[in-house]
Amino acid sequence: MSYDFLWQIALILVSTKICGLITRRFQMPQVVGALLAGLLLGPAVFGLLPSDSEMIKQLAELGVIVIMFSAGMETDIRDLKNAGKSGFLVAMLGVLVPLLGGAGLAAWLAPTENMLQNFFIGTVLTATSVSITVEALREMGRLQSRVGNTILAAAIIDDILGIIALTIMTSLGGGGESIAVVLLKIVLFLVVCCFVYVVGLKALDWYIERAGRRDLRRFPIAAFVVCLMMAWIAEHFFGVADITGAFAAGLMIGATKKAGYIASKFEPVQYLFLAPVFFASIGMTVVLPAMNTQIVIFSVLLVVVAVLSKWLGCGAGAKMCGFTTRECNQIGLGMVCRGEVALIVANKGAEVGLMPDALFGPVIIMVIISTILTPILLKLAYRGEDDLQLEESPLENRSEALEQLDIVTDQLLTREQEIKEKNQKH
Amino acid sequence: MSYDFLWQIALILVSTKICGLITRRFQMPQVVGALLAGLLLGPAVFGLLPSDSEMIKQLAELGVIVIMFSAGMETDIRDLKNAGKSGFLVAMLGVLVPLLGGAGLAAWLAPTENMLQNFFIGTVLTATSVSITVEALREMGRLQSRVGNTILAAAIIDDILGIIALTIMTSLGGGGESIAVVLLKIVLFLVVCCFVYVVGLKALDWYIERAGRRDLRRFPIAAFVVCLMMAWIAEHFFGVADITGAFAAGLMIGATKKAGYIASKFEPVQYLFLAPVFFASIGMTVVLPAMNTQIVIFSVLLVVVAVLSKWLGCGAGAKMCGFTTRECNQIGLGMVCRGEVALIVANKGAEVGLMPDALFGPVIIMVIISTILTPILLKLAYRGEDDLQLEESPLENRSEALEQLDIVTDQLLTREQEIKEKNQKH
Repeated sequence: MSYDFLWQIALILVSTKICGLITRRFQMPQVVGALLAGLLLGPAVFGLLPSDSEMIKQLAELGVIVIMFSAGMETDIRDLKNAGKSGFLVAMLGVLVPLLGGAGLAAWLAPTENMLQNFFIGTVLTATSVSITVEALREMGRLQSRVGNTILAAAIIDDILGIIALTIMTSLGGGGESIAVVLLKIVLFLVVCCFVYVVGLKALDWYIERAGRRDLRRFPIAAFVVCLMMAWIAEHFFGVADITGAFAAGLMIGATKKAGYIASKFEPVQYLFLAPVFFASIGMTVVLPAMNTQIVIFSVLLVVVAVLSKWLGCGAGAKMCGFTTRECNQIGLGMVCRGEVALIVANKGAEVGLMPDALFGPVIIMVIISTILTPILLKLAYRGEDDLQLEESPLENRSEALEQLDIVTDQLLTREQEIKEKNQKH
Repeated sequence: MSYDFLWQIALILVSTKICGLITRRFQMPQVVGALLAGLLLGPAVFGLLPSDSEMIKQLAELGVIVIMFSAGMETDIRDLKNAGKSGFLVAMLGVLVPLLGGAGLAAWLAPTENMLQNFFIGTVLTATSVSITVEALREMGRLQSRVGNTILAAAIIDDILGIIALTIMTSLGGGGESIAVVLLKIVLFLVVCCFVYVVGLKALDWYIERAGRRDLRRFPIAAFVVCLMMAWIAEHFFGVADITGAFAAGLMIGATKKAGYIASKFEPVQYLFLAPVFFASIGMTVVLPAMNTQIVIFSVLLVVVAVLSKWLGCGAGAKMCGFTTRECNQIGLGMVCRGEVALIVANKGAEVGLMPDALFGPVIIMVIISTILTPILLKLAYRGEDDLQLEESPLENRSEALEQLDIVTDQLLTREQEIKEKNQKH
């Protein structure tokens, strides 16, 4: 066994944190710095880390699963239900506008062979990757708001609409499963989620009551098991993204009696280990392809269409639901990020001959730029809002309670250590 | 990328916890259950998990690194220094007695070809693997005691003596590095450790003072980076075990002003994710070989010699240093565990023709049985001692402070959640 993963993880941790602290100094979310750190470490710039390490990839997958699981724990299912209707409209327009925009751009400029390939470029633009937005909103203390819940609801529905769009395209292209099977799977997955939510919640709460305060460690472990199994089941049996399964598991765990305690234990697992690996891995996989002038122009326009179509599409959906213009911008920009989902879609398209090889470069560039732009644009969309929520209403929500507790923990343990050392000197 | 690692980790977490709770019901440490869970999951019994997953192996390595890092954080370097002299005697006799015992047994019964091969079997028996003992002592609240410190000191010295013995054997066998180079490397590693301890501690404490209470997360991250780098440097440049490097890093971090806070953040990373994977992986790698009667008899005797020689050798060393008979048994039994180090030594021997293939089976059996026996025997050696330390002297040591804090955290967050829910109902 090679021990190289030790310094690789150390390098990822130290560089994501340093870059994060630098971007924060410029009033930008730390997640921007973490993404840039990955880009610097990967083959695109310094090439310090291999882009094909299976270990890093799987840790990154665990990282995004834990991020979405935590987002689920912080979300109240009632808020999500209330956001469902507006989320549906936002997601619907957020899929249709990029689909048409991408297809139009491809028909105009790309070296595609038929209409189906043009529409496939549009399909690549439909998939929102919400994890970066979740992290940025959490840093700004805005995840648990009407806007935050609408983005979460829209992202889940977007995931499902994206699967449907991809299935229609690939079955038109002559490969993949039939649309009926895919729809059936999605419905079954929702049934499983409801079942797990209702029955799992009852069972866990019964177990928590019964076990009392003995061996508290069993609860975070049980929660992690539920999270991992739901993520795997979603991906393996239902063709839904693993992070959607993890989010559903988080919703359920977040409703149990030990939700706060469990969340406090997942926090260090996330920021100390898994989340930095995930953020860095996004930048690390970037290998810039050789390109000619036509492709460069197409890339630039693809980025513009990708950002504008999501922003305007989702923003228009939000406007119809009565959000203010400011909130519409926040929702629209929160949905801009594409992330790894677009790359997976592009790969599936290549398998059935819908994705010309020459267009992989532009898609990769679109993913990087939209991912790095999202937290920056979001920060701008929230500019001027009162960010001092923490001091005004301490313990207002769960993650702030955790932050307070963290500071108390630190003071308590530091004090205890000082006493111990004083005793030893005497 | 395959998503199978999701259910594999979930299965490991749930089975190690359930088996751990069962063994605890029988008054045995939970780590025994975790080891048995791995044996059940692996190819030796049910074969549910693959024994060759690179991901699981690397996570397990991270697990044992974090376990030893935490043990380092809990250890006071002054106590360790005080335990150094007795630790040296314990380790010395704990290497010599198994070396001679193993060589004698091999000369008598094993199908070896020359005296060098006989002594190599003895060398395989010298390496103590202390992580299981650390976990068992921690569970019993006995890690921070004179016995615990002596075991830790002896295990570190044992590691170094083991490397020297292995080097002498392999260079006599005609392969590997010269003994002078190896000794030089060990001395250099100790110099690096001292340097990191003195300079790193000063630098970290200066940084902690300067940063104040802003963004506390940076400290656990910095600590993890130091841990990973020391582990990698030890293994890669100096040929010392990675866990020795991690332990040294833990000693340094444990002396900083934020030691308690950092330890509290590593706790969930350990029990929620990495440590169960490590314990399970030990059992999972077990593939029982085909054996004839002669080899079966040899295996049984090898186990007996392995356990008795460490127990008596280390116990005799402890006796010379003035420990009571009870403490000598605790120290001797704490050093019995062999773990993965013996397998690595056996593999190195096979490379230079010192290890007959037929004897791999007995070595594997010796490793499994000594590993599972250690926490059971340790528990017996501590039987009758007052285990209610926690209630008698709350906050007496750091890990108990953490446990108390954990319960307070739980109560606080549960209460806060109830208030929130009550407010929502009105």
